[in-house]
Formats: sequence, C-alpha cells, structure tokens
Amino acid sequence: MKKLLLTGFEPFLNFPINPTKTIAEALDGQQIGNYQIISRILPVDFATSGEAITQAISDLEPDVVVALGLAGGRHKITPERIAINCNGGVEADNQGYIPDGEPIIEGGPDGIFSTLPIQKMVDQMKEAGYPAEISNSAGTYLCNHVMYRALYTIRSQAIQIPCGFIHMPASHELAIKHGKLPSWSQSDLQQAVEICLKTIGANS
Amino acid sequence: MKKLLLTGFEPFLNFPINPTKTIAEALDGQQIGNYQIISRILPVDFATSGEAITQAISDLEPDVVVALGLAGGRHKITPERIAINCNGGVEADNQGYIPDGEPIIEGGPDGIFSTLPIQKMVDQMKEAGYPAEISNSAGTYLCNHVMYRALYTIRSQAIQIPCGFIHMPASHELAIKHGKLPSWSQSDLQQAVEICLKTIGANS
Amino acid sequence: MKKLLLTGFEPFLNFPINPTKTIAEALDGQQIGNYQIISRILPVDFATSGEAITQAISDLEPDVVVALGLAGGRHKITPERIAINCNGGVEADNQGYIPDGEPIIEGGPDGIFSTLPIQKMVDQMKEAGYPAEISNSAGTYLCNHVMYRALYTIRSQAIQIPCGFIHMPASHELAIKHGKLPSWSQSDLQQAVEICLKTIGANS
Amino acid sequence: MKKLLLTGFEPFLNFPINPTKTIAEALDGQQIGNYQIISRILPVDFATSGEAITQAISDLEPDVVVALGLAGGRHKITPERIAINCNGGVEADNQGYIPDGEPIIEGGPDGIFSTLPIQKMVDQMKEAGYPAEISNSAGTYLCNHVMYRALYTIRSQAIQIPCGFIHMPASHELAIKHGKLPSWSQSDLQQAVEICLKTIGANS
Repeated sequence: MKKLLLTGFEPFLNFPINPTKTIAEALDGQQIGNYQIISRILPVDFATSGEAITQAISDLEPDVVVALGLAGGRHKITPERIAINCNGGVEADNQGYIPDGEPIIEGGPDGIFSTLPIQKMVDQMKEAGYPAEISNSAGTYLCNHVMYRALYTIRSQAIQIPCGFIHMPASHELAIKHGKLPSWSQSDLQQAVEICLKTIGANS
Repeated sequence: MKKLLLTGFEPFLNFPINPTKTIAEALDGQQIGNYQIISRILPVDFATSGEAITQAISDLEPDVVVALGLAGGRHKITPERIAINCNGGVEADNQGYIPDGEPIIEGGPDGIFSTLPIQKMVDQMKEAGYPAEISNSAGTYLCNHVMYRALYTIRSQAIQIPCGFIHMPASHELAIKHGKLPSWSQSDLQQAVEICLKTIGANS
Repeated sequence: MKKLLLTGFEPFLNFPINPTKTIAEALDGQQIGNYQIISRILPVDFATSGEAITQAISDLEPDVVVALGLAGGRHKITPERIAINCNGGVEADNQGYIPDGEPIIEGGPDGIFSTLPIQKMVDQMKEAGYPAEISNSAGTYLCNHVMYRALYTIRSQAIQIPCGFIHMPASHELAIKHGKLPSWSQSDLQQAVEICLKTIGANS
Repeated sequence: MKKLLLTGFEPFLNFPINPTKTIAEALDGQQIGNYQIISRILPVDFATSGEAITQAISDLEPDVVVALGLAGGRHKITPERIAINCNGGVEADNQGYIPDGEPIIEGGPDGIFSTLPIQKMVDQMKEAGYPAEISNSAGTYLCNHVMYRALYTIRSQAIQIPCGFIHMPASHELAIKHGKLPSWSQSDLQQAVEICLKTIGANS
C-alpha cells in the first residue's frame, strides 16, 4: 500500500490549540483511499521544522506529502498554490526567533508551485459541502517554510511525488479560546482533509 | 406543554439560501426541553413581516418567542441585545422597498431590550463548543424590524413572555453559493439554536 | 455666540494614541460655523467619564454636545444612531474595571436616539469626499456610556439641545503603531469632524 | 536624467474609479529624485496588458519599472514581494475573459521576486506617516500578470534594472462610490507613491 506523509503543527503564537495537530493525530495509521497515513507533528521553529519534514521524507519514502497548517482568520479550506523562498514576517516562532526576510535556501528558486491537484481538491470539497478555494500565499512564516523545504527537497532529489500544503480555519474550540476567529467544527475540518486526501489518491 | 414560537426568514438579497428557514422547518413540531416548537417562516418584507409575527403571537399565544435571522458575514451565533425603532439601511427588501430611517412604531421607545437570557445562552453555547457572543445591533433591516415589532407587541399588551432574536452565520451551503462568507455546517447552526432553546426553558 | 461642547477620549486598551483627543484639542477655542468650540478630554473610566461629561454640560451650558470616540477597525466616519442602557463588553477600562452588562442608569430607557442630524452629517461628509455612514451601535464600552449619560442628562433635564456621538477610524499614526487597523490621515479625520460641526450648525 | 516607467490601470470590475490611473497621470512628466517619470495606463485585459508593459519597456528603455495597482479591501500601501506564473481567479477582465489557472509564460519560473527595495520602501513610508507593509501575494489577476510579465522580460533579457509592483488601497472617492472599501485620500496615496519612488532612487 502507498504511504502518505501527513504533517500538522504544534500550537503557536496566541493560538493555544492547533486543529492541524488534532487532525494529523486522528488520521495517523488510518487508510484513506489507497493510502496508509503516517503523521508527524512539526515544531513551530525555523531552525528545526524544515529539517523535520525533510528527514521524514527521507526516512519514510512516502508516495505523497501533505502538510497542514492553521490560518487563523481564514474561513475556507485553502490549498496553497506556491511556496516562496523567504523567511519573513514580524512574529516570532516558538523559540523566539524572528526572521528578517532571508532566503530559506540560498540560491533556491523564488517560488515553487504545489504539485497536489489543488483545483480538484477545491472542487471536490465544495461538491461535498465544504467551502474551499485556492490560496496564492502561504505567508512567510512556518507554513510557507515547511512547504518550501518539502517541495525543494523533492524537486532537487528528482523524486516524482505530489507534495503540497493545505491551510485551514480555526476550530470552534480554538475560536472560543481565542475570541476573534472564524471557525468550523473540528469534524468538518477533518472531513474536508479526508476529501483532499481521497482526491489526491484518485489523481495519482 | 408550553409553546415556543420559532421564526426563520425566507431567502433575501444575494443570499439564495436562508439557513434560518431550514432550522425553523426542521424544528417545527419537535419538543425541546419543556417546549413544543411551532415554527413560522417570515417574509423579507417591511410591509408584512411585522404583521406576520404579531399575528402569530396573537393566534398561537406562545410562552416564548424566538426569532432567527441570517447575519451574512458574522462567524458566531449572536443573540441580539436590543431592537431599535428604525427602518433603515440602503438595501431593498424582497418587494423592492428601501426604507428611509422612519420609525417602526410612531412614538414607540427608541430601543427595547431582548427579554431572553442572552448571556446564559452565550455561556451555554460556548460550554457546548459553539462560538457565541451578544450582539449590540440587529441592524435596521428586517431582522431588527421583526424583533422590535415582537417586543413592542408583547410590552404594549403587558404579556409576560420572553422574546428575542438570534443572528446566525451563513451555512456552508450558502457560503459555497455566495463565495465570500464565513460559515458553519447547517447541523452546527441547528445544534446551537437547540442549546439556546433549552437554556431559555431552563430559565423560565 | 453659541457654544459647542466637543469631547475626545484619552488613549485606551492597545491604542497608544487617540486621534479624538488630538482633534478635540486642535479645535478647542476655534469658531466653526456659529459655534465657539469648547473641548474636554474624557477619561476611559466607567466610574468617572459619565460624571465628567454630565458636569461639563452643567458647567458650560452648551448649545450642542458632540462626543468623539475611536472605533479601531472601522474605515468610515460613523455618527451613532443610538446609545443603550448597558455597560458591557469583555475589556477593561483604564482603571481595570470590566463591567458585567449592568444598566448605566437604573430604570433608564433601554435606548436613546442621538439628536444630531446624523443623516445630513453623513450626506455632507460624503459630498465633501469623506466616506461616512450611520452606525447602529456604539458598543457597550466607554463611548456608548458617555453618549448615554449625555443624552439621558439632557432628556431628563428637558434641555432642548442636540447631542450625539461620532465614531472615527484610526489615524495613520495610530495604525502604524498598532499594526492592523484601517486608517485615515489625522487631517482627513479632523476635516470630516469640522464638516459635521458645520452641518449641525446649519440645522440648529 | 534617468527614466522611471510608472504604470497605473484603468478602472475594472465594480471599481468605477482607479486611483492608480490618477496617480500615474498626475506624476507623468514630473521629476522625482533622479528620475524623469514616464507614465502609461494599462488595460485590464489579459490579452494585451502584458504586451503593453513589455512594449513600453522595450520602447522607453527605462532605468526603473514601477507598476501600480488597486487592491480594493487593503488599507495599507503594499509593495509586492513576488509575481507568480499563473493567470487565475474567478473574475473576468474588462474583455470578459476569465482565466483558468494557465501559466502566463509556458515554462517560465513559478515565481519571480520583485527587484525593488521593498523593505526600505515600507520603512520610508512608515517613517513618513503612511501605513505600509510587504505583501506576499499580488493575486492571479491582472496586477500579478503585469508584474510577472515585466519581471520575466527584464530577467530573460538580462537587463539590470529594478522592477516591481505596488498595491494600494481605494481612494476616498472610490470608497464612496463603491460603499464597502477602506480608503485613503488620493493625496495620501500619491504622496506614499512619491516616497517609494524617492526610496528607489536613493537605492539605485
């Protein structure tokens, strides 16, 4: 059976819960479509998160890589179109590091497109009743960092596997703690991710 | 058994679906807590909606009145604190009428507070996992109009029953058709309303 | 010459600058239309701000009362339609007090409408090139508190003078410090207020 | 004297005024810093806008290229970090064409970074009192298209000139017509652009 590496993130900034961690843990070991799901939880840390996903790709030799991240403030599931070669922003990671716009990979391409079937994922989620749209920016924080590192690793090693990133709204539970975020129920979030994984399977 | 009049609205403006209509229809005839639910769907029409809810109160002699309305753009369930004596806004009702800021009831009080236990409803919804907060404005469109008419009728007839209004986010289904609204699943919306109705029952 | 009492607020919460203080200070002593402007800066304090504006009305015997407040997040000038009889919200005042939804005046009316010519003020601001619209809620924090206290005082003493509240966007200066607010230049904000004051004068 | 090609766009979608057209026209022929400004107004048309800016670069042989575009909904000046190789979105251009996610340049790089001093531009604008921040997405509509075409042309011809794109908020005038946009005065918008152009000059 094919292997799908699914990553979520630990909590960060003023988000005391990360629904992507919950989803990655809930789906770990499950079979979805043709895939055996193998989950990893990534640190919100510029110094180690890229290494963590690169290492997981190397160790597990997955057939697909799907990274999940929280986009507090968004209200749709948004597969990302592109990762960019920049660590930026004004907010610190969980180790207190604030990047300064430096490249992730010196000499790497400015941007690398997702190789997941993002339009089909959006179409299938909407078909199933979940609002979704392609996003054109994963930001310059950890989500973009991990997405870029994974895509760069795969491209530079000429591995032919689909890889990409999906940003998600807050869960109701997180929204209640935080106070100001749009949100979905955790089960809605998880079901939408499952639809994405099935769509990837059907297109591989 | 006590009777609870529950109202929803028909679709309006650029919202081709109204999740409050779906909820009112789904709960019609059900028993929730101590209440028998009796539902009515109101027209989005300044000329007739106030009369419709007033007439329903007169005909059914309910023990509680809860009106539901869609607040496209909000992402929490928001029990309204107050209705104000004004038909306003820049958008037409379903008959094409655009009000001009005129009073709903000539000589009526400027504002009338909801008599539902709005803080307890918010607390109970959050306790159950649904983001909620009190709203301080039901606007000046049909939702406020119906809320004011119901509260005014009850106050002026010295009927001692709780009455108020709850605004709700779009459903996922509506959000997909509309394109730009935060949303919850229809089942989340309905369950949050059921919690409100139980809370009202426990406080009456 | 007629007297116009103009109030602004001191800074509060995470807003280190309050553009309404700057405007009130800049216009203090000026003549606008038929009015001599007399400005007062109010504390962001539930215990003393209502008393401060009530006392100023009593001491100065103004012919008009216009209170200004910052609405961080709004991007138009918004004359308020109504003040409501509630101290609420989840945020502390500058003394650390968090109200609990209690009435401002025990037994006072639920809501009291502004007696300023709010629609004409909006029309005149737009005519002059400044985005504006009527707001239907001044919230339940200090702005609403001061508006309610002033309107209640004037109504209960049967003084026949126009009185109301105008909420304003952040200034560019505040937005730069804060990071996430829509904003106007301070001079745009002040000019829009001057148009409001002239409109009031032309309608009195 | 060095030449700076400055472009604005014509009105589009439901924006009946385009403040970038006004700025480009106002600055055409002026001298700012070391630059003679030469302005062009681009059509909102996937079939011709890329050709128009490419042709202008070829004809004028400018020393700098700065393209301006309206980002209705934003409330800061946002120099763009990257253009991506995709014509996407769900909205038609002024000729009615809706792209389908196709690449702008078959075989072109996924993304190309702006070569303007975007961080210094942001810093200088804030220093001068105008809220600004780097944006990580110019979308996939005409703004991104023109930015990508200009950067691709310059890179593929190995011309060593700075080139990039600046997105801007609505003007007050546009916001009044549109109804729901945050806005700045036209003079604030233009002054912020002038600061950008001076910053580019000081860094070239």
